[in-house]
Amino acid sequence: MKSTNFLKDGFGYKDLRALPPGSLKNLAAEVRELIVDVVGENGGHLGSPLGSVELCIALLRKFDPLEDRVVFDVGHQAYPYKILSDRGDRFRTLRTLGGVSGFPRCAESPCDHFDTGHSSTSISAGLGYAKARDLLKQNHHVVAVIGDAALINGLAFEALNHVKETKTRLIIVLNDNKHSISPRVGGFATMLARLSASTSYNKIKSAIKDCCRALPKGEALEKSLESIHGQIKALVKPQNIFDELDINYWGPFDGHNIEETEMIFELAKSYDRPVLLHFSTVKGKGLPEAEENPTKYHQMSPRAEREAAQRALVKTRTWSDAASGVMEQLAQADDRIVCLTAAMATGVKLENFKTRFPERFFDVGIAESHMLTLAAGMAAGGLRPWVFIYSTFLQRAMDQLTHDVALQNLPAVLMVDRAGLVGSDGETHQGLLDVSWARAIPNLEVYAPADEISLRQMMTYASERGGPTVVRYPRGSLPIRNNLFNGRESLGSVTIRDGEDWALIGHGVTVHILLEAHERAGALGLPTPAVVDLRRLKPLDTDFLDEILKNYPAVVVAEENYLNGGMGEALASRISEIGASTCLKRLGVPDRFIHHATIDQQREFCNLTAEDVLSCAGPLGLKACAHTA
Amino acid sequence: MKSTNFLKDGFGYKDLRALPPGSLKNLAAEVRELIVDVVGENGGHLGSPLGSVELCIALLRKFDPLEDRVVFDVGHQAYPYKILSDRGDRFRTLRTLGGVSGFPRCAESPCDHFDTGHSSTSISAGLGYAKARDLLKQNHHVVAVIGDAALINGLAFEALNHVKETKTRLIIVLNDNKHSISPRVGGFATMLARLSASTSYNKIKSAIKDCCRALPKGEALEKSLESIHGQIKALVKPQNIFDELDINYWGPFDGHNIEETEMIFELAKSYDRPVLLHFSTVKGKGLPEAEENPTKYHQMSPRAEREAAQRALVKTRTWSDAASGVMEQLAQADDRIVCLTAAMATGVKLENFKTRFPERFFDVGIAESHMLTLAAGMAAGGLRPWVFIYSTFLQRAMDQLTHDVALQNLPAVLMVDRAGLVGSDGETHQGLLDVSWARAIPNLEVYAPADEISLRQMMTYASERGGPTVVRYPRGSLPIRNNLFNGRESLGSVTIRDGEDWALIGHGVTVHILLEAHERAGALGLPTPAVVDLRRLKPLDTDFLDEILKNYPAVVVAEENYLNGGMGEALASRISEIGASTCLKRLGVPDRFIHHATIDQQREFCNLTAEDVLSCAGPLGLKACAHTA
Repeated sequence: MKSTNFLKDGFGYKDLRALPPGSLKNLAAEVRELIVDVVGENGGHLGSPLGSVELCIALLRKFDPLEDRVVFDVGHQAYPYKILSDRGDRFRTLRTLGGVSGFPRCAESPCDHFDTGHSSTSISAGLGYAKARDLLKQNHHVVAVIGDAALINGLAFEALNHVKETKTRLIIVLNDNKHSISPRVGGFATMLARLSASTSYNKIKSAIKDCCRALPKGEALEKSLESIHGQIKALVKPQNIFDELDINYWGPFDGHNIEETEMIFELAKSYDRPVLLHFSTVKGKGLPEAEENPTKYHQMSPRAEREAAQRALVKTRTWSDAASGVMEQLAQADDRIVCLTAAMATGVKLENFKTRFPERFFDVGIAESHMLTLAAGMAAGGLRPWVFIYSTFLQRAMDQLTHDVALQNLPAVLMVDRAGLVGSDGETHQGLLDVSWARAIPNLEVYAPADEISLRQMMTYASERGGPTVVRYPRGSLPIRNNLFNGRESLGSVTIRDGEDWALIGHGVTVHILLEAHERAGALGLPTPAVVDLRRLKPLDTDFLDEILKNYPAVVVAEENYLNGGMGEALASRISEIGASTCLKRLGVPDRFIHHATIDQQREFCNLTAEDVLSCAGPLGLKACAHTA
Repeated sequence: MKSTNFLKDGFGYKDLRALPPGSLKNLAAEVRELIVDVVGENGGHLGSPLGSVELCIALLRKFDPLEDRVVFDVGHQAYPYKILSDRGDRFRTLRTLGGVSGFPRCAESPCDHFDTGHSSTSISAGLGYAKARDLLKQNHHVVAVIGDAALINGLAFEALNHVKETKTRLIIVLNDNKHSISPRVGGFATMLARLSASTSYNKIKSAIKDCCRALPKGEALEKSLESIHGQIKALVKPQNIFDELDINYWGPFDGHNIEETEMIFELAKSYDRPVLLHFSTVKGKGLPEAEENPTKYHQMSPRAEREAAQRALVKTRTWSDAASGVMEQLAQADDRIVCLTAAMATGVKLENFKTRFPERFFDVGIAESHMLTLAAGMAAGGLRPWVFIYSTFLQRAMDQLTHDVALQNLPAVLMVDRAGLVGSDGETHQGLLDVSWARAIPNLEVYAPADEISLRQMMTYASERGGPTVVRYPRGSLPIRNNLFNGRESLGSVTIRDGEDWALIGHGVTVHILLEAHERAGALGLPTPAVVDLRRLKPLDTDFLDEILKNYPAVVVAEENYLNGGMGEALASRISEIGASTCLKRLGVPDRFIHHATIDQQREFCNLTAEDVLSCAGPLGLKACAHTA
């Protein structure tokens, strides 16, 4: 496989087009090798891009990445597209600070046309591009590349339903690898499987191709296709949802057969109506272990992290591990408890729960909105649903949280994982809005544990509360420091380190940053600050906090959430409400999207390090404040 | 029709069940009469409840409203259910303070099982109820009643897709009146129309019924149904999306034929699998003018409002009228401008735009998420999309606003109508979250006009800006006061009335409340406050506001948005940031859901009247503050 070496010297899509078809197989192997190598080193998605190599080759050979608009869904399957369009040289910087993003980014290359990261946006965006083309009297092609798992999300369905109405040309490429992160879910999956199984149709498709090739585009092609279609459809291909929605369906085709794929693309280009091309692909293609275990090889952590974990005698436990452990204990004690996830059972570590309580575990697929309303229905019906969801994906279900869960004050618990900065997944995956957004919703209580004992305590409380409760916790490993809360029984805010003249207030991960500042203050000649863990973000623990705000003339609040609408604003408001004269400095995420990098680099960028906390002393006029106290 | 009079003396669902079938037609007429009468007086939805009278009669005769769980979608079609279950006596209080809500409310009656108002939640909620029943080993029926327009929303599709996986019994009643508020949209609508047109199938259904009736429930029934189905399906009924999703489809049936409907319900009750029952109904049934013009008669305003409008020589112009008027002028000047709505063309007054610019108008149906991502695609493709959306429905598209529009800093404009308190539609329709939520999203600029001239100025700016811009404006008529901004060119904050010792800061409608307070202060012996119109909510106009905060020792902020995360918090934070010693009082919506009532009553409840503003003087220690200045 290593005999050729295409991917050097600025190899780009123009070189790709010049290659003879016979060499494409070797190129594909080389692309796979590069992906396995880079993802093994930097971390990132593995199974999806390995499965889309041939599709991306064919896309770039048949469409012009500068003229045509290729919109990828989610975008983790776009690694081969990035490598082969214009980023082969710098692909080794994948997901590192200043390097290539793990998702399409228009700012990164003129070959990317729509920023993504969340699923199921491509058909809507593609329709938008197509209508813009029509109205601006342009003539390029628009291609939406979507996976089968993304297709079951409501957003994609709304777009599919709208295709007919828009009366425009759009090529939808369905990359069907039969998997979301976990195996896909629902009736739609069965329907796709039925389509894929209709092999006798495949045998006839060469006849269709031959027939169409000779024809002029448009009406004639369509009629021809339909007449042949019509004859065979009733016999070999069940009518399907796409036909129902008046979207022409062609397929299924082998998405690893470059020649066939290119021919289908060529046909689709000359077709004047919306068409969905159904390609079957294999997730993890070319890497036997990934083909066999696609869920495990969906995404990898960076080599350094994996090796560090291997070196450790005890495996590093994550927040997700801790939360799922507590969950199993609570579920053991209360039959009413059920757990829900939207295709993230692996990420939130619910596999074991699923094994132990199969009847009480629900993976709804990538359908966050439905998950929340389903949970509301379950709670109304007498169950105690626990929804495990990444902070960034909760953005997809804010109305359901408000209108279905909170309005009825239902006993549903939201376990908001990956809250705060998330590192190399970058701007689309940051969990920086949940605090600001959840604070504004009535009836919710919101908690943020800084250690495992608090997490357990909050979850236990949530299981008893009987009202809608949010527990947000960060990505990654549990902190080494534990038992920060000093055994206090209440779930309210608590002073975890005494100090003088100033107090540092945080929640979740920032508490540990504040502890570091607390320890280092003396060495800088500063008074040692008290450290307060907010723990409950909503409602504010005003009894306790009022004392802090009155007793400390200077306060720093630090949080991994946008400053706008965050806890710093809540405390500033409280200061004015009680008429305290506290000097306040708010640290948090500034008003911009935070790019991919390590979490530590992102914290530096956001001024959320212990140094940043300590450097507040000056602007706070700390000594002045301290001496007037 | 008036010969009988069922609806008195606490007529309830038990009485309904005792009625002989022969009298149901008269009852239906009486229910319609009551609805027309009450809605004509109080305002509310008209077309949908008129179309669902027979369905509700059959539901209450065949299901037990206390034991079984009937979940209505949106809920405006539930008026007959309310009247006939247990609220006939108090139905005349519809949508008034303390009276019957315009939507299902569990707190109102044990016969209501899920609070709604937004569309497309019923299948998810119904599945939740069904799984709760199964796990808690109960045995009642769960019925989800959904309209055809609600079915195209992604949430409903996600639920439909999940039905198969949940392996539970659920009865989905599709009330197909071929309309959302405006005529329905998309490929799905065509599919339903095709189904409805398959009349030969209808002729055979009596055979199915006879056959099934004699059978024991479950397996046998299913097989029997399927064998008959199978034989006739290929000939007369196209396979449809529900079959594809492995949901049994029965229909279409005449939803105004009570006897047939009851029989179908009886059959569905004895069926052990999920089933969708498709009923054709007529929106506005029984009221000729509503049948002829279902869009116009979808919803009515209260009689008092209509009569007031008639008395006025000039028709009272609303904020929506003003916004759409400006929109047409801007679109006239810029070919790139397109307008989008999610089934709200009437509400946001875009009908005229649609007539003038049919190619540049997009009604996507009830599909807010798709609308935002479609707009993002259009903007990426070179158009200038303007999205007209009610504040409450924007809650459905927050991730799309964040991830698709704001992240890419795309030139899309969000015209957020019905922002603030909305009156008799009640808690599900309040527009109280948009400020808190939008403030936290990077790249957005957020504006709130207090008068028509500001609205025009902001829209003109938004059309030129080339970045994502939100303009929020309230429900109802334009204020009488106009030209508040004193001709100032900038879009930043502005002092619209001078004053001494204290300043009142508001945005949008609250500016007028503050003006009233300004005028009345002198009579109460208070210093006359300055009045500041924030106008731009994000980014804050800090240059201007810092001067206000430093110059006025006491400030009141008033806004129609939740206090949590609102502009009051932003200003409190700014005070601490610049080290001002301003005394601040924040008025806004308290941390709870606000029930139906008139807007004025809701303002009183929220302490958002001129009296409330003036009564801040005391707590602010105004005189003390003033004298130290």
